[in-house]
Amino acid sequence: MFNQITILAPGLLGASVARAVSARGLAKRVIIWARRPEVRVQLDELSWCHATAETPEEAVAESDLVIIAAPVDCIVRLTQQIAPHLAANAIVTDVGSVKGEISRLGHVALNGKAHFVGSHPMAGSEKTGWANGDPELFTKRTCFVTPLPDTNPGAVETAVRFWHDLGSEVVTMSPDAHDEIVAHISHLPHVLAATLCAYLQRKDHSWRNYAGGGLRDTTRIAASDAKLWRTILEQNRDEVLRAISEFQDELQSLHSALSNRDYHEVATRLERGSNYRSGFRP
Amino acid sequence: MFNQITILAPGLLGASVARAVSARGLAKRVIIWARRPEVRVQLDELSWCHATAETPEEAVAESDLVIIAAPVDCIVRLTQQIAPHLAANAIVTDVGSVKGEISRLGHVALNGKAHFVGSHPMAGSEKTGWANGDPELFTKRTCFVTPLPDTNPGAVETAVRFWHDLGSEVVTMSPDAHDEIVAHISHLPHVLAATLCAYLQRKDHSWRNYAGGGLRDTTRIAASDAKLWRTILEQNRDEVLRAISEFQDELQSLHSALSNRDYHEVATRLERGSNYRSGFRP
Repeated sequence: MFNQITILAPGLLGASVARAVSARGLAKRVIIWARRPEVRVQLDELSWCHATAETPEEAVAESDLVIIAAPVDCIVRLTQQIAPHLAANAIVTDVGSVKGEISRLGHVALNGKAHFVGSHPMAGSEKTGWANGDPELFTKRTCFVTPLPDTNPGAVETAVRFWHDLGSEVVTMSPDAHDEIVAHISHLPHVLAATLCAYLQRKDHSWRNYAGGGLRDTTRIAASDAKLWRTILEQNRDEVLRAISEFQDELQSLHSALSNRDYHEVATRLERGSNYRSGFRP
Repeated sequence: MFNQITILAPGLLGASVARAVSARGLAKRVIIWARRPEVRVQLDELSWCHATAETPEEAVAESDLVIIAAPVDCIVRLTQQIAPHLAANAIVTDVGSVKGEISRLGHVALNGKAHFVGSHPMAGSEKTGWANGDPELFTKRTCFVTPLPDTNPGAVETAVRFWHDLGSEVVTMSPDAHDEIVAHISHLPHVLAATLCAYLQRKDHSWRNYAGGGLRDTTRIAASDAKLWRTILEQNRDEVLRAISEFQDELQSLHSALSNRDYHEVATRLERGSNYRSGFRP
């Protein structure tokens, strides 16, 4: 059990961590810093928040574990800001969707006195905001933990155990391997859903009223926050560009097959997709 | 109320029609023809099937309304086969996902003695087969009814009322207008989901175990029957090719913006998609 856990900048994920920590009794105290004072007032009323702090620096003092739940473009800055105020050997982690730069700069910022271990729980929703926090959000979902070769092994072990205790299936790999994988299984699907919607937006708007389950499912994630996703694509630009290009080749091959009336090839490609999807875990 | 309704070749949709007709008391008798004798034996046991017939010709005799629930590439042939055996002024409809050719050839096949009125309920599931039939499958879902200029107006009205009575929101338009719309809101999303899966199939297969809700939702329809979808794409080839090409342009513009580090343009495109998706009915 942790003596004290701090959560900085809780949105959906940060609030879900706080609620899960409380529900599973993983810490004696949970301290939260939220930027907006009115959010702090609301959090102070809740059973899963033991206290709020007015600054990140105050919030992290005396904590064993700090979870930075801010958007990807704020994580490094917050890490640098809290670095001088961390307890010796404190562990700092995050929930950002891109890990390369964050893991490297986070490690440098803490300078060996505390330990940065990047994390990325593959949990979320098109709903955002701390009020939608769910203590079961991480249950049976993958959580990536992305140490560098130099990261303190004990700190990695603690981070892995923490996410495991929240119900996640933890996978440990390098930040760059992580970024390649999520470019394919998360960022590319998002780009396709958003682009499909951006395309349909140029057509007759009444069409969306006819949507069956197919279009609804395919585009659900497109409703997510555009600013957040802009930053994710920015941080994982090279891998995402590569994945889009390769997808474009695959789509062009299908287009050519259909254009050439090569229906055997069309069927083969649909079959390959169908077999792959059928192998997903239930 | 119809005196007798016939359903030919029930899969998920045909069985759902039969169950909905029975649940809502829309016909005195429901007669079903299924190609495979063992299916007919099973159907004969069920309360929502009053009798099965060994041939389509036998099944349609004396029916006011015939619903052809066969795959799109079999509908015209079945219509031609039953034409000489239909009662005078019988109405024949279908549930095919493409309407142009089927509506025109169906109309010609019945030659004014009976009436072909094309239909396409936007209901379905990645589950297939008559055993998954659901009497509520059509509730609050769009159903397209696609008459030609020459189609008997009374027959159109009857078909519209039928789907309305099954709970659908009926939209009437020309077969070609329908085919353009579904190329965009159904066939293109399917192509993207299937192509994404076909692309990921070439990568490390363990990646799919890490999938969050985004990839799962985005690709759900890719698990559908590849043979069925090959035929749909074949029948709606021109419209689907056009939609794929336009989507490719949209995707290439996003790729260029990201490649050029024009993050304002990236955000604008994501925003446009997000706004469009947020306007979907709940």
